[in-house]
Amino acid sequence: MTSLKVGLIGAGRLGRMYGQYLAHRVPGVTLAAVADQKPDVAQSLAGDLGVAKSYARHEDLLDDREIEAVAVVTSTSAHKQVVMDAARSGKAIFCEKPISLTLVDAAEMIELVAAKGVFFQMAFQRRFDAGYLAAKKKLEAGAIGDPVMFTSISRDPYAPPIEFCDPKVSGGLIADMGVHDFDAARMYMGEVARVHAIGGTLAYPEMKSVGDIDNAIVDLVFESGALGAVQLSRNAVYGYDIRGEIWGTKGSIQIGYDRQTPIRMFTREGISHDAVPYFMERFENAYLAQIQNFAEHVRKGLPPAITGADAVAALRVSLAANQSLRECRPVELS
Amino acid sequence: MTSLKVGLIGAGRLGRMYGQYLAHRVPGVTLAAVADQKPDVAQSLAGDLGVAKSYARHEDLLDDREIEAVAVVTSTSAHKQVVMDAARSGKAIFCEKPISLTLVDAAEMIELVAAKGVFFQMAFQRRFDAGYLAAKKKLEAGAIGDPVMFTSISRDPYAPPIEFCDPKVSGGLIADMGVHDFDAARMYMGEVARVHAIGGTLAYPEMKSVGDIDNAIVDLVFESGALGAVQLSRNAVYGYDIRGEIWGTKGSIQIGYDRQTPIRMFTREGISHDAVPYFMERFENAYLAQIQNFAEHVRKGLPPAITGADAVAALRVSLAANQSLRECRPVELS
Amino acid sequence: MTSLKVGLIGAGRLGRMYGQYLAHRVPGVTLAAVADQKPDVAQSLAGDLGVAKSYARHEDLLDDREIEAVAVVTSTSAHKQVVMDAARSGKAIFCEKPISLTLVDAAEMIELVAAKGVFFQMAFQRRFDAGYLAAKKKLEAGAIGDPVMFTSISRDPYAPPIEFCDPKVSGGLIADMGVHDFDAARMYMGEVARVHAIGGTLAYPEMKSVGDIDNAIVDLVFESGALGAVQLSRNAVYGYDIRGEIWGTKGSIQIGYDRQTPIRMFTREGISHDAVPYFMERFENAYLAQIQNFAEHVRKGLPPAITGADAVAALRVSLAANQSLRECRPVELS
Amino acid sequence: MTSLKVGLIGAGRLGRMYGQYLAHRVPGVTLAAVADQKPDVAQSLAGDLGVAKSYARHEDLLDDREIEAVAVVTSTSAHKQVVMDAARSGKAIFCEKPISLTLVDAAEMIELVAAKGVFFQMAFQRRFDAGYLAAKKKLEAGAIGDPVMFTSISRDPYAPPIEFCDPKVSGGLIADMGVHDFDAARMYMGEVARVHAIGGTLAYPEMKSVGDIDNAIVDLVFESGALGAVQLSRNAVYGYDIRGEIWGTKGSIQIGYDRQTPIRMFTREGISHDAVPYFMERFENAYLAQIQNFAEHVRKGLPPAITGADAVAALRVSLAANQSLRECRPVELS
Repeated sequence: MTSLKVGLIGAGRLGRMYGQYLAHRVPGVTLAAVADQKPDVAQSLAGDLGVAKSYARHEDLLDDREIEAVAVVTSTSAHKQVVMDAARSGKAIFCEKPISLTLVDAAEMIELVAAKGVFFQMAFQRRFDAGYLAAKKKLEAGAIGDPVMFTSISRDPYAPPIEFCDPKVSGGLIADMGVHDFDAARMYMGEVARVHAIGGTLAYPEMKSVGDIDNAIVDLVFESGALGAVQLSRNAVYGYDIRGEIWGTKGSIQIGYDRQTPIRMFTREGISHDAVPYFMERFENAYLAQIQNFAEHVRKGLPPAITGADAVAALRVSLAANQSLRECRPVELS
Repeated sequence: MTSLKVGLIGAGRLGRMYGQYLAHRVPGVTLAAVADQKPDVAQSLAGDLGVAKSYARHEDLLDDREIEAVAVVTSTSAHKQVVMDAARSGKAIFCEKPISLTLVDAAEMIELVAAKGVFFQMAFQRRFDAGYLAAKKKLEAGAIGDPVMFTSISRDPYAPPIEFCDPKVSGGLIADMGVHDFDAARMYMGEVARVHAIGGTLAYPEMKSVGDIDNAIVDLVFESGALGAVQLSRNAVYGYDIRGEIWGTKGSIQIGYDRQTPIRMFTREGISHDAVPYFMERFENAYLAQIQNFAEHVRKGLPPAITGADAVAALRVSLAANQSLRECRPVELS
Repeated sequence: MTSLKVGLIGAGRLGRMYGQYLAHRVPGVTLAAVADQKPDVAQSLAGDLGVAKSYARHEDLLDDREIEAVAVVTSTSAHKQVVMDAARSGKAIFCEKPISLTLVDAAEMIELVAAKGVFFQMAFQRRFDAGYLAAKKKLEAGAIGDPVMFTSISRDPYAPPIEFCDPKVSGGLIADMGVHDFDAARMYMGEVARVHAIGGTLAYPEMKSVGDIDNAIVDLVFESGALGAVQLSRNAVYGYDIRGEIWGTKGSIQIGYDRQTPIRMFTREGISHDAVPYFMERFENAYLAQIQNFAEHVRKGLPPAITGADAVAALRVSLAANQSLRECRPVELS
Repeated sequence: MTSLKVGLIGAGRLGRMYGQYLAHRVPGVTLAAVADQKPDVAQSLAGDLGVAKSYARHEDLLDDREIEAVAVVTSTSAHKQVVMDAARSGKAIFCEKPISLTLVDAAEMIELVAAKGVFFQMAFQRRFDAGYLAAKKKLEAGAIGDPVMFTSISRDPYAPPIEFCDPKVSGGLIADMGVHDFDAARMYMGEVARVHAIGGTLAYPEMKSVGDIDNAIVDLVFESGALGAVQLSRNAVYGYDIRGEIWGTKGSIQIGYDRQTPIRMFTREGISHDAVPYFMERFENAYLAQIQNFAEHVRKGLPPAITGADAVAALRVSLAANQSLRECRPVELS
């Protein structure tokens, strides 16, 4: 089988990571071009990765006939335009989360993707993490009976730049961070019927100027009647803290870990160890497995592992939670 | 200082434990009498503890002029009558949680206690647990900055007998179990302004016959604006699982542990250890410290460590959470 | 059954602890007298415990006809005289470890105890620790197959006063501390056939003045052919660190824990918790169970749980290890 | 800088791993050829990695003028011939541990390497593990004061094939496994002055037929006077268990971890998790960092990170430990 020619669109922090993987660590793939609206950024990354072609406009990359698939790692607000252009160009598409900031945008994207018949796979890297995968296997094997409660905690070590906190750019705390938790919730528990959210700007008062919150709790009632609890925070000053628990009638599965380097210190100050610094350390292998999975599914003609419908479902929970927060009441999803 | 003569009212599971402590492990105390509405139970416990006097009627114990203080460990539904009789008899009172099933009852109790000027201390043993105490010290020392979220998880290893699940007897899952979590929440975070609860009968369908639930999530918004999350469950099949977390602007304190016996097994099946069996193992030292604290405060003329007002505040949160559950909406407490 | 009248001989740190237990927490026992060569110390402890009689001379306590049993918690160098006097007085004897500093002394003590037919039980509190007990049960149940290696680590948080370090008083590091490890080794693995020791004065140079070491490793070859490793240290600056491992053909049992208070801190400095402060915290329950076991065995006419022969066997390993250290060669025990 | 052309000699289990890394994950390197005495194995690996050239004889690979450096991953018994041939061919050499089975062989290899002036770097992957590296930094920063004891535990999940256990092939348990521990010991503690070993064939009686043992304890006295303890075993039935501890005057550093997948199970059977399967999982990143380090040092003209002298020093400890085991006495190294 010849190698799949992939173009990378977006050369920011995540884009650089996917670029590294596509260039060196995804079997059967050749990274053929890099695009970024900042031409020097695109060129620099292309140079680092030994890639000949770089573009400032994603349209030019999409015009490149050699390229068969694209990884869309732009800012969320650009997803719609890029994905729709990519669909029109007939290329297979990998799209970072969240799919978009509104359900209307997402619906248009999915519709066009379907109309054009192109391969479209969403990114939710937790689905490829060894812990989340093992939990799913255990659950499906009946190790904890029926799941009755799902808890998901996501905590960032610091707040994003204030301009990014603007909910119009990021979707706000709940959509930006929580969408991972809502996707995991769906994976283990099925669809969400009702949400209720509380939150506050409790650690970074400056966030109030753009209208975002830094801590939130979102409760879920699933269609099955089971319960869910999502906690989000921007002030995990010790590091990046991601935890999950699937609580069942016959036991529980706890997902996560909290030490990065395998040493512990014993001194007069007590017993201590470090924490996980950030998402690149926590999910490095998951991100790699995810982009490998995309390449494999495209090459083998398999259906996408994570669909546009998955992305929409997680987005819908996010938006309902935001509404609940604003209106101080539970919101039904059906 | 001569020894304080204490009478124990209620010789059930908790009553036996307090009886052991009062007879042998509380300095400055003599257990002088035991009362239980089942005379043979009272007599048997008195005999085991080397106590001369036992009574079937609490009134008779209260008539005993030698007795200076009573520990009320009856069923919750009897608290009101016993406490009010004890107040009229002028004895110092220790009362197990919850103070009562209704706010009206609690108000009458507290009013009479105040009118009679008797010493009245409530029981919330977590306040005397080494972990909860250490967390309070760390918080007050500023170790985690300002607290912005409090999480409290309480899980029982099995459901109580079905007749006890009847909310008319126990107050239901949220009032029976959650009152501990609400008390801890107040201790660390201040007063609760709003609650929202979801729940379900998910593990023990037979509970539906009496109208109780077996799993619940209660969200709290504190008057400070900080957030709280309480999870309750009756199906921790592996043991008794009590955890807390105080989440602050500069760090976090996690409370709890999950291994009872200090060994770990490494076999072909993996690496494993046991769990905490039940509340007597988890809180043995806290229950002891609590009854010692009561005796010390009475003997030294100190004010009660936990007041009737504390009991009412925790009960009020419980009842608001029950209302939220029934009405599917947030409930304000002010 | 009437209560057993026990006299406590030795009111130092351990003596005070046993005094508390005998006075308040050992069912079926009355603490009847306290003796210590410092009369004010004896009197003060007796007063604290509500015990009427105190003596400066252990002979006077032994002359007390009311007293049926004695707990010998003097310095090791006084064990021989006190135990032999107690044997002559016909009283049941509980003796703290180590039995003596020499095998000759131990042999004389045991011979007289046997000749007088008195009950004699040695103290090795680890045998009553929940972890060590659970490990024994697991081993006997075949959970790890045949044991092939035993590791035991004992670490003190600081060095004893320099005068106590004098091997003529304490037996030196290996006899003073290691005897616990050697006793545990025998309990799990059977008799020791050969030892080899290395050591050094590495943390407290002032110990060289009295000829003691502060760190040692003692290797064991058991009669079964299995292997053993004991590590001893006086410089666990973070606390008291006791660990064991039974290594078998089908798995392993690790014994021990390293956090005292059930909280963990998450801050910019990392993730941390406290350590176990010292032996009273680590083995409080084991010491209590041990003295309860003594009382129960005396009262019920059961044979001693730990015999003089056990004490001699552990002492013999200690002395052989000391010889190995001096002579830089393995020493056979048979 | 042009890419370094590397030839891989040896396509067994470790050879395949290094092949993957050299082909895809070492910046600045091109894997140019694969040699293995089994021609089909060499060819198959070359094919998998997209490498054009494969050889049955290492001499042919060494004759390849394009190749600038070789990774020697043959059986230990072939190291001498291959390394000396490589030295004569003038190529930079990376050599898996142990350098050889005898000091005489090692001396000849090192002499020729020096005479030819070629770059020669040994493999001890633990030196590149995140835990071992972090421990070294902490030690050097004075976090635990002066190191006074070093403990190193290495446990394999099962015994190698019986023919490999033959000490004439593998060097036996102590040389084959322990050389890693001895190298780590030197890295943290300096040179070893004296060793004492005990061991036995305790888990796999069939090993006796070839004269190997399956469990051993090796004690070390360093030139500084500090102490060391190495434990080796072939019967860690639960997985691969590597632990270290640097014990100092002001604290301790524990190295290692015991859970592979970040989930924990809570069921009626207790609380459990998996173990680390084997060395590829435990040291994947360390092996990668090690071969990257080799390439970087060759390309930049840096001195080797681990020298032939390091290899000889670790081998010398191994051989002295074997002698101690045979002769039942301590062996001096100077």
